[in-house]
Amino acid sequence: MADGGGEPDQLAGERATAQFDVDGMKVAWAGSRHAVEVADRMARLVASDPVFRKDIRTMLSRKELFKDTLKKAAHAWKRIVELRLTEEEANLLRLYVDQPGYVDLHWGMFVPAIKGQGTEEQQKKWLPMAYKFQIIGCYAQTELGHGSNVQGLETTATFDPSTDEFVMHSPTLTSSKWWPGGLGKASTHAVVYARLITEGKDYGIHGFIVQLRSLDDHSPLPGVTLGDIGGKFGSGAYNSMDNGVLRFDHVRIPRDQMLMRLSQVTREGKYVHSDVPKQLLYGTMVYVRQTIVADASKALSRAVCIAVRYSAIRKQFGSQDGGPETQVLNYKTQQSRLFPLLASAYAYRFVGQWLKWLYTDVTQKLEAKDYSTLPEAHACTAGLKSVTTSATADAIEECRKLCGGHGYLNSSGLPELFAVYVPACTYEGDNVVLLLQVARFLMKTVAQVATGKQPVGTIAYMGNIQHLMQCKSAVNTAEDWLNPAAIKEVFEARALRMAVNCAQNISKAPSQEEGFSELSPDLLEAAVAHVQLIIVTKFIEKLQEDIPGPGVKEQLQNLCSIYALHLLHKHLGDFLSTGCVTARQGALANELLGKLYAQVRPNAVALVDAFDYTDHYLGSVLGRYDGDVYPALYEEAWKDPLNETVVPDGYQEHLRPLLKQQLKLSRL
Amino acid sequence: MADGGGEPDQLAGERATAQFDVDGMKVAWAGSRHAVEVADRMARLVASDPVFRKDIRTMLSRKELFKDTLKKAAHAWKRIVELRLTEEEANLLRLYVDQPGYVDLHWGMFVPAIKGQGTEEQQKKWLPMAYKFQIIGCYAQTELGHGSNVQGLETTATFDPSTDEFVMHSPTLTSSKWWPGGLGKASTHAVVYARLITEGKDYGIHGFIVQLRSLDDHSPLPGVTLGDIGGKFGSGAYNSMDNGVLRFDHVRIPRDQMLMRLSQVTREGKYVHSDVPKQLLYGTMVYVRQTIVADASKALSRAVCIAVRYSAIRKQFGSQDGGPETQVLNYKTQQSRLFPLLASAYAYRFVGQWLKWLYTDVTQKLEAKDYSTLPEAHACTAGLKSVTTSATADAIEECRKLCGGHGYLNSSGLPELFAVYVPACTYEGDNVVLLLQVARFLMKTVAQVATGKQPVGTIAYMGNIQHLMQCKSAVNTAEDWLNPAAIKEVFEARALRMAVNCAQNISKAPSQEEGFSELSPDLLEAAVAHVQLIIVTKFIEKLQEDIPGPGVKEQLQNLCSIYALHLLHKHLGDFLSTGCVTARQGALANELLGKLYAQVRPNAVALVDAFDYTDHYLGSVLGRYDGDVYPALYEEAWKDPLNETVVPDGYQEHLRPLLKQQLKLSRL
Ligand SMILES: Cc1cc2nc3c(=O)[nH]c(=O)nc-3n(C[C@H](O)[C@H](O)[C@H](O)COP(=O)(O)OP(=O)(O)OC[C@H]3O[C@@H](n4cnc5c(N)ncnc54)[C@H](O)[C@@H]3O)c2cc1C
Ligand SMILES: Cc1cc2nc3c(=O)[nH]c(=O)nc-3n(C[C@H](O)[C@H](O)[C@H](O)COP(=O)(O)OP(=O)(O)OC[C@H]3O[C@@H](n4cnc5c(N)ncnc54)[C@H](O)[C@@H]3O)c2cc1C
Repeated sequence: MADGGGEPDQLAGERATAQFDVDGMKVAWAGSRHAVEVADRMARLVASDPVFRKDIRTMLSRKELFKDTLKKAAHAWKRIVELRLTEEEANLLRLYVDQPGYVDLHWGMFVPAIKGQGTEEQQKKWLPMAYKFQIIGCYAQTELGHGSNVQGLETTATFDPSTDEFVMHSPTLTSSKWWPGGLGKASTHAVVYARLITEGKDYGIHGFIVQLRSLDDHSPLPGVTLGDIGGKFGSGAYNSMDNGVLRFDHVRIPRDQMLMRLSQVTREGKYVHSDVPKQLLYGTMVYVRQTIVADASKALSRAVCIAVRYSAIRKQFGSQDGGPETQVLNYKTQQSRLFPLLASAYAYRFVGQWLKWLYTDVTQKLEAKDYSTLPEAHACTAGLKSVTTSATADAIEECRKLCGGHGYLNSSGLPELFAVYVPACTYEGDNVVLLLQVARFLMKTVAQVATGKQPVGTIAYMGNIQHLMQCKSAVNTAEDWLNPAAIKEVFEARALRMAVNCAQNISKAPSQEEGFSELSPDLLEAAVAHVQLIIVTKFIEKLQEDIPGPGVKEQLQNLCSIYALHLLHKHLGDFLSTGCVTARQGALANELLGKLYAQVRPNAVALVDAFDYTDHYLGSVLGRYDGDVYPALYEEAWKDPLNETVVPDGYQEHLRPLLKQQLKLSRL
Repeated sequence: MADGGGEPDQLAGERATAQFDVDGMKVAWAGSRHAVEVADRMARLVASDPVFRKDIRTMLSRKELFKDTLKKAAHAWKRIVELRLTEEEANLLRLYVDQPGYVDLHWGMFVPAIKGQGTEEQQKKWLPMAYKFQIIGCYAQTELGHGSNVQGLETTATFDPSTDEFVMHSPTLTSSKWWPGGLGKASTHAVVYARLITEGKDYGIHGFIVQLRSLDDHSPLPGVTLGDIGGKFGSGAYNSMDNGVLRFDHVRIPRDQMLMRLSQVTREGKYVHSDVPKQLLYGTMVYVRQTIVADASKALSRAVCIAVRYSAIRKQFGSQDGGPETQVLNYKTQQSRLFPLLASAYAYRFVGQWLKWLYTDVTQKLEAKDYSTLPEAHACTAGLKSVTTSATADAIEECRKLCGGHGYLNSSGLPELFAVYVPACTYEGDNVVLLLQVARFLMKTVAQVATGKQPVGTIAYMGNIQHLMQCKSAVNTAEDWLNPAAIKEVFEARALRMAVNCAQNISKAPSQEEGFSELSPDLLEAAVAHVQLIIVTKFIEKLQEDIPGPGVKEQLQNLCSIYALHLLHKHLGDFLSTGCVTARQGALANELLGKLYAQVRPNAVALVDAFDYTDHYLGSVLGRYDGDVYPALYEEAWKDPLNETVVPDGYQEHLRPLLKQQLKLSRL
């Protein structure tokens, strides 16, 4: 949607060729008519508020940028309170403010940690303060020396029965907390993960609520060293966040600030488990990963929206006869690079919607003390987090390249989008480490299937092992690939056969562990195959729902086929080497892809319009709704500080002497 | 090499396990003992000079950064003159200064353009001034509206016989020159490409030497509008360069500033061709692309060097029994992601060395008026530019991810390395546009082979079409893949069969042009297959030379196998679908890869030491020669401007009121 303005719409012609109801697609994308309406309202609220301007963000110094973030956070909170926004509205408002800051960790990690790991009493004490921002909290887990391996953290929390306190301490340099967002400058409190030591025994990693700064003047409390860990990838981007370093020098906190829902230390220093099962923590994890998958579809759809619109505006070559040049969106290579990314944005969106359902399902089962589906939910969310974030990071950069030279300018919005997005591949679980967890689950399932146990949920297909190990695809014409059942069968067969291959190769090794380690590169590939199957399946299932609006379902069917077939083409080696498809069937899939791209072409701009992003949120002169790209690019350029003077600072000292042959040489 | 310092070497253990002579490898990498010596000397010269410090570069504002670049450029020139450095030495000095700036375009594009396209007279007039920096020149081709399609440029140069001048003019907004490096603030002159119009006729694009700024006070000349086009990807990175915008309002230049080697406009305004063949321009192109391939190996090897050293230092998981944790370099997944990139760095280095030879060869043939090999040289260099830069951009980002969270910090050096590198995929020919040119050449060659014509150079293998279309690989054990002939055969067969497939499919289309356009996504893949074959072949040929030093050749043989086999694995779909290998042979290749990684492992650190980079040039706390990573990370953090105060700027205005519940709300 346009933010306003009155330029003639240069993309009107593109919009006129759409063969579907864009409003209907907006509903399918957002999830409901209500969701469209709220998102639209919040997006406009942000776009129209001068405090939320972000067009010169990449030009700010680190200090200015951080101050700007504090300002925006406070202003957003003011608006949330003033307008009495619901939680849904407030979350969307923060989304559209689109600037990483301490509030993300406060709401996204600190509050959930207390909710998930705090006792009812602790929740009653801390949450109201957090809800009102009387305190600002962050999530301090990672250390300089340990990230992925949480069990290796070195910070200690030693119980001192003489004072009924824990002593928080950083015994080594590598035990310094390092990375927590909001820690460096903004937070007053943190949930700190540390080795619990009592009665001389190390009970491993536990969470503690620790006050870090004075509530009077914000200065660090005695014994607490705090700072920012320095600049990060990109200009603007994640530099608005104060990822921090924290060291403790024997800092004392009351015993009751240990998060005690799962286990406690008694007044006497005894370590005891509560009767709350630790599986409860899985709920939070599923929740967090669901939001990460949803974020992947947001980031990817923004990049795709920019690249599609600009590709429709950009013309290059093809006017031998003096006619207009060709829109680069008409080049088949541009389509074959871009449309699979468009399809992926929709695929991730729908699997994200399904994950929301899964979260509710897991929560209900946990409440009913049914833990049977947890390993599956864990593997599935870990896998989806890994695959969607890795692919999105690559896709944003591909979208940037699809915009040619101009994509390299900050004013295109794409460099910042990339730089701010890529750490999603690392935080909340390094993507490779997560895929290895998925692989372990796959190996376990293969073993269980052999014993006749029936797998559930997203891995249920493995129960169909008899058929899937020997089936041959019946596809005989390109159009046969339009059949979802044909797609599903080959994706299931591929995933299963890769997993079984790995299991067989592992079994030849001296030990299971050695085999797993030796085979781990192959296991990564098997895990990816499994996760891609999940995404394809959820897209297909979405299309079995009622999707209102003329032409909407047809477009989504095209995108679903493109999503699946471009994966088949990209990973053709998997499908061929496991005998799931023949070379001829692979060629037919490729042939169909070409036809599908041609069908998407007239709908491409409308398909990105359906994301319903404001120009403010997109933050890209190339992705402007009205397509009026060139004057905007030109205008943006002059804002650069270098253009404040015609003759640059440094001319007198460093250019003039050179040009005038007056460099002072020390003849040697 | 270390820059100095006296820390104990934490990587000494790794260095001790090397099974080859590192000095010998340095020679193989650099090309000769002399090259090692000069590079080493220049690198140390730069590293020891405080003016060339770059550790806080990412923290500078755009204006500070630009001024710093002017300073470094002047200082480098001063040192070059003072020390009477040779051209080879001067080039290396500039390389190690490692900061993009106007000098790159001055030496890399402006001077070569005059050399290549200027008459002898013009060269005599302009080159001495350029050599002494009495003038600074840039290369102004790209416009806001046209980059890839040079023939579509809109700037006009209209000859006015009444004054014997050309009138340079920018008739539209999109005709603004846009992107030329050094144009925005530094250059006094430019080679400007514009449509030559004389006697009312448009003769297409020609080059003109145009003065832009006063040599007295650097102000733009009348009618000339100049500025910087704004911030670009990353902090630091390419923002040291003043990519610029330029508009002409009827600016007059003398007729003799048209570059007249190939064609002239006479005093009367007649357009005439000289007898110099335009093929001469190819020489420059081969030269420029050769430097880009060489740069790819430099950028990639820097990233790999950082990731390998840090992976040897970083420990995570695996200490169940209280022993030390596992170096992440020991994980097979880390190896399978990293070692192919290490192998690629060597592969690109050697193909770059070969391209230097090709340049000499082309130059000699041009002098002898033998143009027969030009199309092949053109396709080969276009393809190598495209494939090596795309792969290098991806690889740098993969190296960053391989460093986990810390890779996201600017102090790791990797974000800047990525941001400064990626435009290589776009400038000097968009990589997709270049691959399509390669594909056209392939289609032409396939057609010629059918008529019995014998192809030459890197495409000679296509002459062997009888054998390659029907051969079956004889590989029967994993070790059979160690045989270079076995590798070469399947890479040749794959490339040829993909090209022939495309040609056959094109021939089914209504017209050749339509077919080419429809098939263009497949043609890209065929082009990549052809180029990968070239790189593999040149690596194999390198190993047929005498390579002194104990163990050196053995290591390179391993890397060559890894390079080829990881491609075979990655593109297995190509090899299987064209019937070049069987699924079993593919699995054997994969099996061998695992064994080869194990052989590289003890040599990994020494293999990156052989690049002989100073800590200054690497610019990464993670890639330090001595491996003393953690104290360095910790120290770097405190340099961030945000850490100047403990309580951040903005606390009083934006944090305190929030925390004290004193936000001024306008109750609605
Ligand atoms: C922008 C950003 C924000 C962050 N915010 C927070 C925050 O708010 N709070 C917080 O506590 N932390 C935060 N983190 C830290 C983040 O959670 C860690 O960086 C992440 O867990 C990865 O751990 P690592 O950095 O130790 O990577 P490492 O584990 O050191 O990874 C290095 C390499 O080793 C590989 N590797 C590691 N283990 C294995 C294995 N077993 N097998 C195979 N390969 C392996 C990895 O794949 C990777 O290639 C943040 C990080 C970033 C970048
Ligand atoms: C950092 C940097 C420095 C530069 N320095 C200079 C300089 O010093 N001097 C100078 O003159 N220029 C310079 N340039 C400009 C550069 O040469 C152009 O950006 C480059 O040629 C690409 O052209 P473009 O930007 O017009 O891309 P476009 O051609 O607009 O590309 C956009 C998209 O269209 C696709 N496309 C275009 N044509 C076709 C086709 N026929 N078939 C299929 N797909 C197609 C491309 O693949 C791409 O995906 C620089 C650019 C950058 C980023």
